[in-house]
Amino acid sequence: MDNTDLDIVISGGTTLTISPDMAIIENSQIGIKDGTIRFVRKQGDSLKDYRCKKYIDAAGSLIMPGLINTHTHLPMVCFRGLADDLPLMDWLNNHIFPAEAKYVNRDMVYHGSMLAIAEMILSGTTTFCDGYFFESTVAKAAVDTGMRGVACQGFIDFPTPDNPNPSNKEDIARSFIEKWTGVSPLVSPALVCHSPYTCSPETLTLIKGIAREHNLLFLIHLAETQEEVAVIKERYGTTPVRHLYNLGILDEDTVPAHCVWVDDEEIDILADCGVKVSHIPESNMKLATGNAPIPRMLEKGITVSLGTDGCASNNDLDMFLEMDTTAKIHKVVEMDPTVMDAKTVLRMATIEGAKALGMEDSIGSIEAGKRADIIILDMKKPHLTPLYNCYSQLVYSATGADVSTSIINGKIVMEDRRLLSMDIADIMGNVRRIADKIKADRHA
Amino acid sequence: MDNTDLDIVISGGTTLTISPDMAIIENSQIGIKDGTIRFVRKQGDSLKDYRCKKYIDAAGSLIMPGLINTHTHLPMVCFRGLADDLPLMDWLNNHIFPAEAKYVNRDMVYHGSMLAIAEMILSGTTTFCDGYFFESTVAKAAVDTGMRGVACQGFIDFPTPDNPNPSNKEDIARSFIEKWTGVSPLVSPALVCHSPYTCSPETLTLIKGIAREHNLLFLIHLAETQEEVAVIKERYGTTPVRHLYNLGILDEDTVPAHCVWVDDEEIDILADCGVKVSHIPESNMKLATGNAPIPRMLEKGITVSLGTDGCASNNDLDMFLEMDTTAKIHKVVEMDPTVMDAKTVLRMATIEGAKALGMEDSIGSIEAGKRADIIILDMKKPHLTPLYNCYSQLVYSATGADVSTSIINGKIVMEDRRLLSMDIADIMGNVRRIADKIKADRHA
Repeated sequence: MDNTDLDIVISGGTTLTISPDMAIIENSQIGIKDGTIRFVRKQGDSLKDYRCKKYIDAAGSLIMPGLINTHTHLPMVCFRGLADDLPLMDWLNNHIFPAEAKYVNRDMVYHGSMLAIAEMILSGTTTFCDGYFFESTVAKAAVDTGMRGVACQGFIDFPTPDNPNPSNKEDIARSFIEKWTGVSPLVSPALVCHSPYTCSPETLTLIKGIAREHNLLFLIHLAETQEEVAVIKERYGTTPVRHLYNLGILDEDTVPAHCVWVDDEEIDILADCGVKVSHIPESNMKLATGNAPIPRMLEKGITVSLGTDGCASNNDLDMFLEMDTTAKIHKVVEMDPTVMDAKTVLRMATIEGAKALGMEDSIGSIEAGKRADIIILDMKKPHLTPLYNCYSQLVYSATGADVSTSIINGKIVMEDRRLLSMDIADIMGNVRRIADKIKADRHA
Repeated sequence: MDNTDLDIVISGGTTLTISPDMAIIENSQIGIKDGTIRFVRKQGDSLKDYRCKKYIDAAGSLIMPGLINTHTHLPMVCFRGLADDLPLMDWLNNHIFPAEAKYVNRDMVYHGSMLAIAEMILSGTTTFCDGYFFESTVAKAAVDTGMRGVACQGFIDFPTPDNPNPSNKEDIARSFIEKWTGVSPLVSPALVCHSPYTCSPETLTLIKGIAREHNLLFLIHLAETQEEVAVIKERYGTTPVRHLYNLGILDEDTVPAHCVWVDDEEIDILADCGVKVSHIPESNMKLATGNAPIPRMLEKGITVSLGTDGCASNNDLDMFLEMDTTAKIHKVVEMDPTVMDAKTVLRMATIEGAKALGMEDSIGSIEAGKRADIIILDMKKPHLTPLYNCYSQLVYSATGADVSTSIINGKIVMEDRRLLSMDIADIMGNVRRIADKIKADRHA
């Protein structure tokens, strides 16, 4: 530690480092400079020697790494609550797909992304991994607001609002990568194929090949529904996971979401290939698609992280609620209250998410040398009192609304629940105008 | 409507009445006088004629009946997070029961109840139904804070912190009823037997008989675990529900909690007897006891309400989160996204809860003539934007932290998230001191 002054000091409170030894530091002190965590330690009096630009008194708070949402579709906040409690195919074919065909444009994607980023920052998420249409616009919203994200250009074998001509996939992939590589410390590009049933083997191998060529992540929805399994079996004579394996798609840079309908041998395949699974429990429950066998995946050593999915199937982006559900759903499914303990789940939402995104060297824990993606929770509240076990309290009792301060890449983006990098009234107004148009059309 | 001035007027916003026709009134106006709702209607200019002591501008808010938690153990907030992710019998026998034997006393019950009431009011619950030790102390906390509650004196066939001599049950029941009948408009007495496996047939029939004699509710944990079913079968040669039916315990004033392990014929028995079931999904999930077949109970016309259970097995008292879980868990269990739609679930947490407690004439909806138990949610937040469907938004996107104002029996007990009827810093301090003693003993 040199004698340079610090940008931010967070003093007091208890820090959950999520470091390899899961150190919990009471009465801690964190120093941040140039976006980097310079030290995290027990509070002493040595800080007197440093001046800092910003001093945060965190007495009575918990300090932890920002949460990492590894699977979402941000602009879908515009469709939050538009169509719920419907049969899956009715929901998709008669509500979501038509709404997307009609209302998704660059404007909607920007305003929706801004609102989603506001919601994420307010609920403690500091990194997202998104796939939607007009993905450059999602990426721009992240840059504009100081949010960290992986923006995935999407591919599917039919015309979309942002690509009426599905035949030019290679150009789109390459120009997206070129556009976003090295542009911002906050946003990195990746590629996503929608699913094995909406993308041909040619599309899958083409896009995965380009991702591999650039060392980029490749995402896909995989084995989400029983219908998908049936379709893939009919078309290719095998299951979705085996189909991707046969195509050479599965490796440690592939991050499939859902993985609900996988048998034990497929779990072994995912483990052997080093695939990182995004678990999306609330969406799986709300759409009644099933429950993923996550405890067996963890036993096999698979990296499992958490995602919220889009707001049409959740209906929020609160990773604290996703953690609570994750801890509870597997207990009742396995009829074993010891599975998915709070500490395991909190890791899934932080360091395991960082591993999934290939960012474990820079985010996912509070350790010297990592980027400063940090959230502070005010624990002086009735529903967080008393405090015996930090992990339990965060997973089973806290919600996103308990996050008071969020720091991303060393910048304070929320303080005392005020968003500092955006005009939230303006953003909500923009999305309300989009929704008003949708409502007017429905009633027309 | 006479010309009397009003105590409170809530003006603007959208009111979900939960009346029999489920009327939703946009730009509404609610008048309250002497604790009673005098009118709820579309806003006009006729209000000019009235003076009111308190005017609440609810523009941009949702107004709805306060939530009703029909099964909880309030003082257990003192054990929130004390022991999680453990096998059920280890949790009960090595953590919860010993902690209760050692730390439960009148002081702990009062301070714990105060904290729990604070948490409930802050998250939109206006009525609870509680069963714990020193139940008069729970009742006193409700009276002291202006909370509405049903306080259930408890019975079990072994010595407890508040009753070292289990043989004097009749005296205890009668004196509790005498003490709390007609004392307060907020608190009514009832009786609870812990369970069919901890109470003999004699205890069950004695206590139910006294409850029946006084037209009071009788509560019980019923068919919660597979272990309970096995024990009852061994002892009595039948299942828990049939056992209670054979004893004549089941009628429309009996409110059993859990009812997880019930077969179709037992559901018919519960329906035929008019029993009102408390559904406790988060506790059932966290303790891995199973999932209650609620959709089948609803098909059979059973009144089903919601409860959070105590904070050692949830770990919060937020009924909004309980609603979200209720809507989702049954979808995935039934593999049908249309079951337990948001409107059904919101009714379970309001008017069906009122029916369960025999209070449907006075609470559970916003209608002229009912007592004013009303909550107001601030919807001008990113995670509640945009708004297509009020029921969806409340069940799938809102949390207790979105409640801005709570009114119980015509008194404002929370305004702009400030608790008006208690000193919350003092209350949290009292519970922290109890927890510090527990922590010190554990480490000793």
